[in-house]
Amino acid sequence: MDLREYLKRRQRWVDAALERWVTDENEFPSRVHRAMRYSLFAGGKRLRPILTIAAAEAVGGRVADVLPLACSLELIHTYSLIHDDLPSMDDDDLRRGKPTSHKVFGEALAILAGDALLTEAFHLVTRPDLMRSVSSRRRLRAINQVARAAGSCGMIGGQVMDMASQGQKVDSHLLEYIHSHKTGALIAASVCAGAIIGGASPRQYKALNSYGEKLGLAFQVIDDLLDVQGEEKKLGKAIGKDKVKGKATYPALFGIAKSQRQAEVLVEEALGHLKPFNGRANPLREIAKFTLKRKE
Amino acid sequence: MDLREYLKRRQRWVDAALERWVTDENEFPSRVHRAMRYSLFAGGKRLRPILTIAAAEAVGGRVADVLPLACSLELIHTYSLIHDDLPSMDDDDLRRGKPTSHKVFGEALAILAGDALLTEAFHLVTRPDLMRSVSSRRRLRAINQVARAAGSCGMIGGQVMDMASQGQKVDSHLLEYIHSHKTGALIAASVCAGAIIGGASPRQYKALNSYGEKLGLAFQVIDDLLDVQGEEKKLGKAIGKDKVKGKATYPALFGIAKSQRQAEVLVEEALGHLKPFNGRANPLREIAKFTLKRKE
Repeated sequence: MDLREYLKRRQRWVDAALERWVTDENEFPSRVHRAMRYSLFAGGKRLRPILTIAAAEAVGGRVADVLPLACSLELIHTYSLIHDDLPSMDDDDLRRGKPTSHKVFGEALAILAGDALLTEAFHLVTRPDLMRSVSSRRRLRAINQVARAAGSCGMIGGQVMDMASQGQKVDSHLLEYIHSHKTGALIAASVCAGAIIGGASPRQYKALNSYGEKLGLAFQVIDDLLDVQGEEKKLGKAIGKDKVKGKATYPALFGIAKSQRQAEVLVEEALGHLKPFNGRANPLREIAKFTLKRKE
Repeated sequence: MDLREYLKRRQRWVDAALERWVTDENEFPSRVHRAMRYSLFAGGKRLRPILTIAAAEAVGGRVADVLPLACSLELIHTYSLIHDDLPSMDDDDLRRGKPTSHKVFGEALAILAGDALLTEAFHLVTRPDLMRSVSSRRRLRAINQVARAAGSCGMIGGQVMDMASQGQKVDSHLLEYIHSHKTGALIAASVCAGAIIGGASPRQYKALNSYGEKLGLAFQVIDDLLDVQGEEKKLGKAIGKDKVKGKATYPALFGIAKSQRQAEVLVEEALGHLKPFNGRANPLREIAKFTLKRKE
């Protein structure tokens, strides 16, 4: 299969859906909608919504049924980036090659735009005019998974420990906690949410959940490596920042070669969980392999 | 009826439910759960959850069915207070007589605790082990209402315009927008959500929605008046802050006497919308009347 074509196509679907469903800039108060859209359409790869779609497809689900939920994962991801970039958090000036939200709109509006994106995620997936062919019970279950993964025992928990451990000595146990929660939880939830809406059996769900967990962790290990070895131009942000901030990373703890090997093992494990699936899971397989090769 | 007894009892139910359902401080990472609980159990009056319960009771619904949703409204209200108090927003040091979240935990953790409370609101109302006797469809509808009211076209929109208009000349039209969105939207949604879960007919729902809108606006007008005339000790915060910050308020625009009269008219209108209801709506009636007399 042509992964590039597959990704491009779904990225377009997600972009078009976000364009359609997220409040227009002309809507009052336009300043908050402008700030929301500034970050939402800043060139994101749409990895999480694409994983939601691919997981639904892997179990025979329909794209139209899963698209609102896929978009909600991008809304949550975008809010988390805006808040992570704030002066009191990572204090970043650039994101995807563009000034960060608080640089453009000021701190207060950046916080509120983040809050609004998070809230919109749950507004979107509960809209009565969308996802009408999916049972309400299944929708609730998927939303619950996403909320859990995004919350204090998931993504936020990871960010809290990432902040708390800066400049501290971090062991491999805590490092894995930070990575698997800060990045991994929402990636795994993206896969799981698609699986639920797509109608996965309990066994399929379990396998896809494990796939998502391994993939999410691999993704963050590669992120750490890119901060050491990547090209600023392709990444759209400064490299070497983790070290400056005293952040715990895989390369810092294990070295580059061992971290690279760990990412490879994680991807192999992710692929292992897809063994029971037929060709419909090929996109998930290719995405996992691609994770190791990504440059941005 | 004895309103004080009614409120006290439901406050206890809400407190006990929040205690049971919101993640324990011992749960990792404990610092974020401590921050969440610090603000959640800081002596809030639980007005929003009580309105949810009272609205459900008014249409013959059961308290147990509506309690998780009632709690989620308190979670959203609490997150909004933490974020509003931040240095880049209202920069408040005291809330309900206690140091604000960012004063105790620092800015980063205050932002994250707010994010976590907002996320937990949607996690709680979608838990598969709660509200089992309520249809999933009805639950989705209620969650959608709450998310809309909390979002960029509701509460957040109000806060955005409140921030944007500080020190500016504000006309009565914009002032009503700010108040009806910043405070009114979530109060109205509290009533509506209870009505939906309680099984309101379309006509009942419409009446309760109107009641909630009038009550929410009245509540904020009284809040403005308390900032001018209230007692700091009872309020648990400094008074006269609105003027210092150049905030648009009803007393500033219309004077004290006219603002007081406006609040009374709004409460009368709220009560008017309850005319078709029987004695089960008495708590809603008493709450509306009490709004005019509150000192904190």
